[in-house]
This record gives sequence, C-alpha cells and structure tokens, in this order.
Amino acid sequence: MTQNIYDNPQFFAGYATLDRSVKGLDGAPEWPALRALLPELKGKQVIDLGCGYGWFCRWALEQGARRILGVDVSEKMLAQAREMTHSPLIDYQRQDLESLHLPAESVSLAYSSLALHYLQNIDGLFSTLFQALKPGGSVVFSAEHPIYTAPLKQGWIVGSEGEKAWPVSHYQQEGERISNWFADGVKKQHRTLATWVNALIAAGFVIEHLDEWGPSAEQIQANPALDEEKERPMLFLLSARKPG
Amino acid sequence: MTQNIYDNPQFFAGYATLDRSVKGLDGAPEWPALRALLPELKGKQVIDLGCGYGWFCRWALEQGARRILGVDVSEKMLAQAREMTHSPLIDYQRQDLESLHLPAESVSLAYSSLALHYLQNIDGLFSTLFQALKPGGSVVFSAEHPIYTAPLKQGWIVGSEGEKAWPVSHYQQEGERISNWFADGVKKQHRTLATWVNALIAAGFVIEHLDEWGPSAEQIQANPALDEEKERPMLFLLSARKPG
Repeated sequence: MTQNIYDNPQFFAGYATLDRSVKGLDGAPEWPALRALLPELKGKQVIDLGCGYGWFCRWALEQGARRILGVDVSEKMLAQAREMTHSPLIDYQRQDLESLHLPAESVSLAYSSLALHYLQNIDGLFSTLFQALKPGGSVVFSAEHPIYTAPLKQGWIVGSEGEKAWPVSHYQQEGERISNWFADGVKKQHRTLATWVNALIAAGFVIEHLDEWGPSAEQIQANPALDEEKERPMLFLLSARKPG
Repeated sequence: MTQNIYDNPQFFAGYATLDRSVKGLDGAPEWPALRALLPELKGKQVIDLGCGYGWFCRWALEQGARRILGVDVSEKMLAQAREMTHSPLIDYQRQDLESLHLPAESVSLAYSSLALHYLQNIDGLFSTLFQALKPGGSVVFSAEHPIYTAPLKQGWIVGSEGEKAWPVSHYQQEGERISNWFADGVKKQHRTLATWVNALIAAGFVIEHLDEWGPSAEQIQANPALDEEKERPMLFLLSARKPG
C-alpha cells in the first residue's frame, strides 16, 4: 500500500499552508496548463485520483460534470473535502490507488494532480483506468518530473554569481526516493519520463500531449519565487486518450 | 540551412576516430535499443536522414530493404558512404534536412541517428516525413537528450568522493547551444522532450515508444567509460507510426 504521509499531522499542517491548499486550483501555477489538456466536462463522469481537499471535484461540479468520484488514501483530506463541498453528484471514497476497483467503461475523464509519483505500481493503475474509461475518454495527470526526482538528495547548486543548476544523477535508477518535505521520510517513486509514456502506451492509450511545465514570464513577474522553475522542470503533465 | 560541421576537416578527422565511425552500428552502445524499435525491413523502402558513412544504409541492405535513400548535408560523409557500399538499391543524396523533398507515400521507414538535434525546424521535417510515409509506416530516430543539451556550458560536476552529477539549467530556454566537440562552435538545437513528442503528434504521428537510453550493467562491464551514462541520459530514442 502507498505510504499515507498526508495523515501525518506535521505533514498535514505543513501542506495546509501551501498556496494550492489555501487558494485551490488557482494557487497552483501549472493549473492553466493542466486545464488546457482537459476535455469538456459538462454531463460527464469524472474521477479524481488523489483528490485531496477536493478542489478539482468542486471545479468539475461547476463545469457541469454529472458524476464525480474523488478518491484519496488520506482520511483527513477526505474529511476536509466532504466539509468543503456538499453535492449529491460528488462521492468521496477512501481507496488505495494501487488497488483501485472501478466499473468498466464508467468514466470519461480520469484526472490526477501530483499524486501518481507516490505509487509503486503504475502499470496496474493505467490498466485499471483504461478499462474504466469509455472509448474516447481521457486520462490527464501531473506528477513530479524525473529530472526533479532523480537525485538521491535533491537540491540546487548555486554558482558564484547566484546562477542555479539542478544536479541530475541516478536518472536510470528507478525506485524509491526519500525527501524531507513538511515531514521526514516522505517516500516517492522515481521513474523516467520514458517509463511513464511507455506505461500509458502499453495499457492501450494514445499519447495526446506532454508538457514539461515551466512558468511563463508573466507568472515569474507576478511571483518571483517561480523564477528558478525555468531552469529545470519540477512537474510534467500528460494527457492520453482511449481510442474509440 | 543547417550548419555543416561534418565538412570541417578538424571535426571530420575527430569524428572518424569514434567507435561508431570505425565499427559502425555495433560501435554505438544504443544500437541494440534502436534496432529493437525498427520494423521488419525486407522488401521495404527506407530513408536514412543524416546517413553519415552509410552504416545504417548498408545494414538495411543486408536486411533485404528494396530501396534505400541515404541523405546527408556533408559531401565528405557521402563520398565515404558511396565508397564503402556499392549497390544499385542505395541512393546517396546531398540534401539539407530542413528543406527535404520526398514523394508522397513512398517510404515505409524514416530513420535517423543523432542528426535531428542539428535542425532548427523540426515541425517542417516531421510534416515532410508524415506525407512521405506510407500508411502504417514508421519514423524511428535518436537525438541528444534535452537533459544533456540544456546547460549553456555542458560538463559534469564531480563530488568529493568522485560521484558525478549533470547540472541542468536553462531547460525551458529552447534554441541554439554551442559546444566544442572535435571542433569549436558546433551548433546544436536544444528542445525539450515535450517539444519533440508534441511535434510528432502535431504532424499526425502516434507515439509508439520512448527510450531515454542508458547502458546496461553488461555494457558498463565491457566498457567502463559508459558508467557515467547511467547518471543522466545523453540520448533519447523515439518511434512513432503513421496511422493506417
């Protein structure tokens, strides 16, 4: 089972302070790029894998989605999500994404934001999603970029004139990486971009778009802390389609 | 027009000393991975973009390809290629890959090894290849990996215990990179992996496989100089198919 770091009180408290926690989707600088990959949701069935506070489920509701399933491994996140948005169209369920069960051809969009890099077995999930999607349905997700996750110890190196570089090593060594982010011992899985792409293809998907996200000049101007993100991608976004 | 560094005498002499120049395909450690992406060539029409000495054209001939076109911008390379392999089935042509003309639906495989990162306009080439391929035909190529090409000045950083890391910066800044490799001022184009993938999709291709090549344990044992290649990919291999 995937580590449930979100129910660690220290992690939960830290995570709650992030812009993306406080402000929701608009607090995440990659959201405009991720939104651009989404299909029309009106009247559609949607699943959010690792739904957290349920910001995306709430947004999908506003877009006119007909049935929304938010899945997360964290009871605390689900409790907040249930409190934040009440609707008979949204169902929040506690499930481990590595042993997810979904009815066949029941959803039009499988969405996930920054959750899948916690999973050890991505092949199984992609097979599950493929059978759960209707023909023509999409999977759209973001995850930490392998350039970011590759080093065993992550951190910038800073040159004599303040210029930053991200030292990449161990890229081909897939598997667990331990980081200390709000709590010690957060476990993530490093896999190459090729592994992500090929896993989708092996499950039957057609790759539609890859985005190795970086900030726009306008975003950097509005939030100078984003400047370093142009040096190396921290996230990638992928969309793929079930043929039909 | 693409820089023709291969006709620079110093570069040409240096390049001639590489294992991949002396030994041909088997001198390139990524060749087994690249070969695994190729379709059956017997009876097929093949084009090699940036054919160099013509090692691949010669191999395609051995595999039973029916017509082989080797294209390169370097007269010197083409002269060596013509000298090395004589066959009425192989045609070597000097053409700039950025202004290539090919008859519609005339080839089954467009192949390229470590040439396309010299091109400024990849969209135009992929459109040209798409129309030149028969339905069901493939494009299979290798190019320098953007992790490798991103930094303005490329080189390892070495830690106190000899551990190597590749400092990535300027990843989002696509465009020209100057390196000194056998000759000063070799011009290559850095583009993100997303740009490569999305350009193929935009041209109409379906992505089949991505390989961010790294050496196997056996290859490192046989050639210890390859050891550092597991820290970060220097090359990627991509295969895509024209539907039909």
